[in-house]
Amino acid sequence: MGNSFGDLFRISTFGESHGGGVGVTIDGCPPRLEISEAEIQFELDRRRPGQSKIVTPRKEADTCEILSGVFEGKTIGTPIAILVRNQNTRPQDYDEMAVKYRPSHADATYDAKYGIRNWQGGGRSSARETIGRVAGGAIAKKILAQVANVEIIGYVKRIQDIEAVVNPNTVTLEQVESNIARCPDTECAERMIERIEKIRNSGDSIGGVVECVARNVPKGLGEPVFDKLEADIAKAVMSLPASKGFEIGSGFAGTLLTGSEHNDEFYIDETGEVRTFTNNSGGIQGGISNGENIIVRVAFKPTATIRKEQRTVTNTGEETILAAKGRHDPCVLPRAVPMVEAMIALVLCDHLLRHQGQCHTLKL
Amino acid sequence: MGNSFGDLFRISTFGESHGGGVGVTIDGCPPRLEISEAEIQFELDRRRPGQSKIVTPRKEADTCEILSGVFEGKTIGTPIAILVRNQNTRPQDYDEMAVKYRPSHADATYDAKYGIRNWQGGGRSSARETIGRVAGGAIAKKILAQVANVEIIGYVKRIQDIEAVVNPNTVTLEQVESNIARCPDTECAERMIERIEKIRNSGDSIGGVVECVARNVPKGLGEPVFDKLEADIAKAVMSLPASKGFEIGSGFAGTLLTGSEHNDEFYIDETGEVRTFTNNSGGIQGGISNGENIIVRVAFKPTATIRKEQRTVTNTGEETILAAKGRHDPCVLPRAVPMVEAMIALVLCDHLLRHQGQCHTLKL
Amino acid sequence: MGNSFGDLFRISTFGESHGGGVGVTIDGCPPRLEISEAEIQFELDRRRPGQSKIVTPRKEADTCEILSGVFEGKTIGTPIAILVRNQNTRPQDYDEMAVKYRPSHADATYDAKYGIRNWQGGGRSSARETIGRVAGGAIAKKILAQVANVEIIGYVKRIQDIEAVVNPNTVTLEQVESNIARCPDTECAERMIERIEKIRNSGDSIGGVVECVARNVPKGLGEPVFDKLEADIAKAVMSLPASKGFEIGSGFAGTLLTGSEHNDEFYIDETGEVRTFTNNSGGIQGGISNGENIIVRVAFKPTATIRKEQRTVTNTGEETILAAKGRHDPCVLPRAVPMVEAMIALVLCDHLLRHQGQCHTLKL
Amino acid sequence: MGNSFGDLFRISTFGESHGGGVGVTIDGCPPRLEISEAEIQFELDRRRPGQSKIVTPRKEADTCEILSGVFEGKTIGTPIAILVRNQNTRPQDYDEMAVKYRPSHADATYDAKYGIRNWQGGGRSSARETIGRVAGGAIAKKILAQVANVEIIGYVKRIQDIEAVVNPNTVTLEQVESNIARCPDTECAERMIERIEKIRNSGDSIGGVVECVARNVPKGLGEPVFDKLEADIAKAVMSLPASKGFEIGSGFAGTLLTGSEHNDEFYIDETGEVRTFTNNSGGIQGGISNGENIIVRVAFKPTATIRKEQRTVTNTGEETILAAKGRHDPCVLPRAVPMVEAMIALVLCDHLLRHQGQCHTLKL
Repeated sequence: MGNSFGDLFRISTFGESHGGGVGVTIDGCPPRLEISEAEIQFELDRRRPGQSKIVTPRKEADTCEILSGVFEGKTIGTPIAILVRNQNTRPQDYDEMAVKYRPSHADATYDAKYGIRNWQGGGRSSARETIGRVAGGAIAKKILAQVANVEIIGYVKRIQDIEAVVNPNTVTLEQVESNIARCPDTECAERMIERIEKIRNSGDSIGGVVECVARNVPKGLGEPVFDKLEADIAKAVMSLPASKGFEIGSGFAGTLLTGSEHNDEFYIDETGEVRTFTNNSGGIQGGISNGENIIVRVAFKPTATIRKEQRTVTNTGEETILAAKGRHDPCVLPRAVPMVEAMIALVLCDHLLRHQGQCHTLKL
Repeated sequence: MGNSFGDLFRISTFGESHGGGVGVTIDGCPPRLEISEAEIQFELDRRRPGQSKIVTPRKEADTCEILSGVFEGKTIGTPIAILVRNQNTRPQDYDEMAVKYRPSHADATYDAKYGIRNWQGGGRSSARETIGRVAGGAIAKKILAQVANVEIIGYVKRIQDIEAVVNPNTVTLEQVESNIARCPDTECAERMIERIEKIRNSGDSIGGVVECVARNVPKGLGEPVFDKLEADIAKAVMSLPASKGFEIGSGFAGTLLTGSEHNDEFYIDETGEVRTFTNNSGGIQGGISNGENIIVRVAFKPTATIRKEQRTVTNTGEETILAAKGRHDPCVLPRAVPMVEAMIALVLCDHLLRHQGQCHTLKL
Repeated sequence: MGNSFGDLFRISTFGESHGGGVGVTIDGCPPRLEISEAEIQFELDRRRPGQSKIVTPRKEADTCEILSGVFEGKTIGTPIAILVRNQNTRPQDYDEMAVKYRPSHADATYDAKYGIRNWQGGGRSSARETIGRVAGGAIAKKILAQVANVEIIGYVKRIQDIEAVVNPNTVTLEQVESNIARCPDTECAERMIERIEKIRNSGDSIGGVVECVARNVPKGLGEPVFDKLEADIAKAVMSLPASKGFEIGSGFAGTLLTGSEHNDEFYIDETGEVRTFTNNSGGIQGGISNGENIIVRVAFKPTATIRKEQRTVTNTGEETILAAKGRHDPCVLPRAVPMVEAMIALVLCDHLLRHQGQCHTLKL
Repeated sequence: MGNSFGDLFRISTFGESHGGGVGVTIDGCPPRLEISEAEIQFELDRRRPGQSKIVTPRKEADTCEILSGVFEGKTIGTPIAILVRNQNTRPQDYDEMAVKYRPSHADATYDAKYGIRNWQGGGRSSARETIGRVAGGAIAKKILAQVANVEIIGYVKRIQDIEAVVNPNTVTLEQVESNIARCPDTECAERMIERIEKIRNSGDSIGGVVECVARNVPKGLGEPVFDKLEADIAKAVMSLPASKGFEIGSGFAGTLLTGSEHNDEFYIDETGEVRTFTNNSGGIQGGISNGENIIVRVAFKPTATIRKEQRTVTNTGEETILAAKGRHDPCVLPRAVPMVEAMIALVLCDHLLRHQGQCHTLKL
């Protein structure tokens, strides 16, 4: 279980890193939305392996095929199934991992839970599973843009201790895509790239923080009390591989302030709209969007699979040593950016549909 | 919507801070569990107002009544409904708030979403809603303890910059409950209490971090890929009022390490069990519990409602000044401890039931 | 599990026939709906025991209390909890049933499933559980009436072989409520009442068929392919105690026709609307409402609990004889009418909210 | 929405009759189950077009491909995605239907709901969608057989007024498959085949009743009160195309009996098991399986698409005449048998997993 996400806009992903392919079914997409394989491919290309010298060299075009739900270029209200075939698999790279558990990877827990495992690559726990998320997110983004002009922009905020200076209120997709680190602070990006290359050469890996902003989110999204908007976003991004922490607005740093420092005081802007002077809330108050920019940060640990030797055990209970073969990301952050954006788009789109149905249209 | 949590062990809370009462319905509790109102009351007393000099002085006994689902002291497999009547309400304290939005509170967003609001106190967004969570959590804790000897212990880890030294592997409930700050580092607790009293006297508020450990969690809980155990825990605690951040295991600090430093290497312990030398994973790998202690931290912002004057607006769009009346917590942390424990218990209990049904008992 | 119904308009019922009380929590009710306890009580009175000489003489006022979700006479978008206390319980009537299973009742299966049972009356399987459904249905009806002028009218169509002649397109609530049989064919109603009294005097019971019409249902409700409108209605009414069959439109009789006889040919009416000459489809085509009247029938078996002696077994596995004591309905049909209406109202309200959110309001 | 079915064993189907293909994703299948494409193909072949002279001559091999979730012949606990490509499409047959609504088909309601429609064939409302159900049902059947030796056997009970005599307690799959009508009463089957051929030649269509029995169902499946086993089965089969009625056990005929005639009296069999002398309950009491055979009947209307001329309207609101072209079933009953079996298997498998998790394994 657990392979579906969302209520009214629901994606269900399938597929392992090795096997027929990976994909997604999207249920709840409104009809009459124009959508093309090219638009989905654009996002898939941002997350695909082999896109630059600082990501895994696995060569996969990750070409998507829309199997259903689109007719003459438009959605028809039925499930949109999207398939990406697996191609550049090298199961022989994983022979050793068939018996040796990679430390801090999912190998051991999958075996403990299921008593069986596709050991060719990460199987279901591979980052390859996120293809379905990114494809679904591409459609969610388009709906959000078209209905409410919502923009969702993620970027690498920090690699280890190299932290970028970025203004979330003005950052653009072009700035993010201007370098292979996906860090809009270009000077900082260079140092990040250098660091990643260095760590890759040492056979090790590093982590960091992705920041993501959603702008123009309509007021009123989010369902108290358990489906608060930030709670659903937290779940969404904490379900991404390698994520270890989440914060919104002031986050952990906000705990150092007093209430009078932290509270976002209100004013009325020139259009008569209720606004806040500051945005420590990160765009959400009481679990409901308040119209300010939604700003979140996600911590990603260093990639688990490394070439360095580590102590581990086999699936038959013997202690041993493993130095991973295969092609792996020295740092997941650049490829994680479109994943974080996709997950936030999925949450917002789901809540947009929930909200429309419950409040706005029923004139009681 | 959004008032239910969990799939196989599901709680649905109801009630506003002012009105007939608050409560919870618990669906999916296994039959034949011994449970009493006293056991639930024990947890409710840990979160009730008026319990000490550093929490809100609102006087409520919060006495619970089990309306259904228990017969002759045992659960019978039907929904357990629990009701707590509202008593010490003082709606007159809120006259001003009927028109003025409290900064960083839910007043404005509720009005934006619903076009109507119970302005007597926080209404549905009041921390009073968490009574139902804590009651449900009390039952979840009992199931977990009885089935698998699971222990869930939360405590105040930090108030502003006052950080406690606590060993999550050995901390006890008695140590936590030994002082009104719910901080097992007693020297630190004193400083925390002093700080809270000082801030209360100034009419302001402060925040901090709750840490929580779950010990003896069976291996195999958690459902890849969206319902990863840490994703569900993240959602659970980020749905608590005032929470701004979440991390598991190494969390944000882990992003500074390399993979070879961060990975939890495996060994075989004396009983033949697969174990890890370190626990940067925080007890979960690939979304599935690995048998190590689950350790999470939750950031709580300073309470939004303060006596200090703040700039705000009215529900008719005029700028004004508000200095809140009423009885409020200067710091939610001590009362947040049982809430965090409850939410984690709810997630673990739900996943315990999910796991039992899907893997263990079906001998294929 | 299984105590909740609906997705966007969701009721969760709780309570046993003996214990603190029964009730319901309604999540997803749109805000700003005027609703009073009196409106809910009106429907509860139609289903309460002791209302006439042909139903069970158990004397219960079934007075409802709204615990939450309503403020100054209007819904506020939060869960509406409604409680009805149990009063006229006579557990001593059930002493014998504590050990002897009533044939065709739920006693034996509850014991088999849960290993424990509230044997005082039907416990959770008592028709008393339907109080929560009828209360929830009262609110659903009001929403449907206010948003779309939908009318839902049920009536007793047949008692054993006594079948009424009723025009579903014109029948009124007043006609239904004009007699205690709830059969708008008054001549037929008299014969039904006579038959029920006769069977009650003999210590036996009888069944029959309830027919229900929903008029003015907007086009477009229903979600292909599994949540077809008729599928959800079928589940809704087949979850009522004692129901054994369901049909829509032409139903089982329609299987005797040819396609050319059965198909509902289209025409354009004077307002330009697409209509059908006949209504064998019962208002639903392809799982989606077509604007014609929705007409369904539900078969209810004779009440299981009878005073006549029957062969049965004890919970310790001994064969014995049981002649039930206690106060029971000789025929559930008159009281089943508001239950069927409520369940259909709940389905339509849920689909109304689903539909509004997904298609109408999003202008793509 | 509405394209998923089940909670713990959940299928999600996708695909239209014309387009890339149709398929299903199955989430919640226990790991380590041996399953092959051949086993799934066996069931698909029972429902495919062109299998005999009395079904639609559309020629499709309906060859399935397992895309994920199976490794070295066994399930691994991850989603099983199955794809069947569309092949023998003839969109030109549907040119006229692009503008003219087929009476009693889903054309008009899909247009009303979505404002767009794949008019090439039935699109999503085509019986082709049931491929995914039958594929999912094949796996559910295997689990049920392996865990509990459950047998699910459906057959054509009646075509128009031609009713078969079949003993549900002893009927075998071989008897069902012995003739193209799928009616185990072979003499009756001949008359059915003759009738279907006659009606096909006249350009018309006919309907009938499928009966289905599930044997060896464990006691205790079903979740009171809304997810009663018969309620979930009712929804399952009423979601099949062309179904108009459902009954369990005595069904509508049972309403003619008295309680003392209808009740299933208990006895203790030679093995000490609680059994019933009769089975008017159809194997379910109080919504929970009682260990007797589950017996249900489903009414299917005559196929909507016929070659005879009918009055209809266009999608631009003009009255016209339609005589359908294309290749259609004169009677859906023979192909509906595996669909009914599949839906019942899906419900039972889901409840088996629900039940295992909630009661049996937790020793409290």
